[in-house]
Amino acid sequence: MTTQQPLYYMGIDGGGSKCRALLTDAEGKELGTGQSGPANPNQGLDQSLNSILDCATQAIDNAGLPASTIDKVYAGMGLAGLNLPKYYQWMANWDHPFARLNISTDLHIACLGAHGGGDGAVIITGTGSCGMVNVKGQRRQFGGHGFTVGDQGSGAWLGINAIRQSLQALDGLLPKTDLVERVLDLTQCQTARELAQTMAGQSPAKYAKLAPVVFEQANVKDELATELVIKGADYINRLARRLFGYNPPRFSMIGGLAPIIAPWLDEDVKERLQPSLHSPEMGAVLFAQQDNPKRDTL
Amino acid sequence: MTTQQPLYYMGIDGGGSKCRALLTDAEGKELGTGQSGPANPNQGLDQSLNSILDCATQAIDNAGLPASTIDKVYAGMGLAGLNLPKYYQWMANWDHPFARLNISTDLHIACLGAHGGGDGAVIITGTGSCGMVNVKGQRRQFGGHGFTVGDQGSGAWLGINAIRQSLQALDGLLPKTDLVERVLDLTQCQTARELAQTMAGQSPAKYAKLAPVVFEQANVKDELATELVIKGADYINRLARRLFGYNPPRFSMIGGLAPIIAPWLDEDVKERLQPSLHSPEMGAVLFAQQDNPKRDTL
Repeated sequence: MTTQQPLYYMGIDGGGSKCRALLTDAEGKELGTGQSGPANPNQGLDQSLNSILDCATQAIDNAGLPASTIDKVYAGMGLAGLNLPKYYQWMANWDHPFARLNISTDLHIACLGAHGGGDGAVIITGTGSCGMVNVKGQRRQFGGHGFTVGDQGSGAWLGINAIRQSLQALDGLLPKTDLVERVLDLTQCQTARELAQTMAGQSPAKYAKLAPVVFEQANVKDELATELVIKGADYINRLARRLFGYNPPRFSMIGGLAPIIAPWLDEDVKERLQPSLHSPEMGAVLFAQQDNPKRDTL
Repeated sequence: MTTQQPLYYMGIDGGGSKCRALLTDAEGKELGTGQSGPANPNQGLDQSLNSILDCATQAIDNAGLPASTIDKVYAGMGLAGLNLPKYYQWMANWDHPFARLNISTDLHIACLGAHGGGDGAVIITGTGSCGMVNVKGQRRQFGGHGFTVGDQGSGAWLGINAIRQSLQALDGLLPKTDLVERVLDLTQCQTARELAQTMAGQSPAKYAKLAPVVFEQANVKDELATELVIKGADYINRLARRLFGYNPPRFSMIGGLAPIIAPWLDEDVKERLQPSLHSPEMGAVLFAQQDNPKRDTL
């Protein structure tokens, strides 16, 4: 590890579907960006590291700099899944190629970005879902327990529940609405048996691809889709109110589903919603600038 | 494969938690039994084959016969998961040690056993859940789509949903009832983070171990547990009514959860419930006696 002043900063935001990198100069001016695949270590450490290196390399290349620049970069990285000690430890032990690497959760850097480094609360709803409040130097995190036992209201949760409902509908146990036809169409399946065999044990990212269709169908009052979206929104409402209990001065929602699920939220939650000031990647750049940041102990 | 008359029949019933074998003489008189671990091939073909051979060997040993007896046995086997073509093909290609092996689903042999080979409908609720109706030579199967996208109302489904609710309660998003304390106790966890890390990605059998506690808590009106049991029972009610549409002369419920969930079912379902005539293993013995049985095409 070098002790000289950095020439570059890089912010990396790694989620369950994709990983984004932003390279800046020493003053924080954007030089280049990169984007790659899934980076949540719960889907495999190798895939996660590959995605991180891939988008970092792209950002350097996009800036017109040689690949060797990487060892002059102070990087800040927020990764989904890093609230779990096992994955945090994996990543802390990584023999990375940067001059310095600060690691934390995707939530933390999103919160830093959304509120320009100031106090506030965020909910991320993309492939997964979770919430964080950062007030007076204290951070609290809720949700984000991973796809199989948590992440309600997320894209993966909506997608796998669309599969579950479609299977019941194909069995004649629920009404067979247009959602079912669209799920069969998207998965290229024709029967319940095919759908179960094709879609059991898929990745969160794969399930999350069905989420936009669930919202499209809910917007035309499809019975099954509406039930799912209302149930997902109910979780997000409860999560938001939990965060409001800490009196955050600002509240933002981030992630691919945020603008789509927002109209379905209750009024008391919607009226506190404010736009993000910066991207999570820029939040990660702010994080890269911190010396010896404290590990998120939540 | 031998062409001589069999000296022995064996019925094998393999589910997601355990595998049972029953050895009879050529007239169907019980000689010995065996029991082993999970045999659903969706949890791994090797584990499944090991469990099958283990309980078969036990049954022969329990009958006081030498291990070499296995090649004089006509076996009939019903396995969970065998409604999926991939797993059926795996098992059909198995170079098994029996004189003959008829394979089908656990549902099929349960239905044969429950109604003594006659027409009827069954619902299995154990680690997984599914329903079958067998009327006038036609079989129809519903549910049984596997743990991740189906099996509502089953032990695994109740167990994983108890985890999901406990995580929400620990996050302060749901009331923290006694169910949560019991789940933490059984899983030896203390926090939401620990619980998520310990219980994500576990086997269906492991989740199903929590199901009895969910019923115990529902029986003392625990809010979270009651909500889960009512939701599970609602699925079983709808599944039963779907089967009733085929006018089966008899209806039985089988599996570890059957006697526990039955009191929670609606009256129209409860009043049609009749006891099983024989065990699924004996159904498998009846199946072993069939020459060239037709593959379940449902």
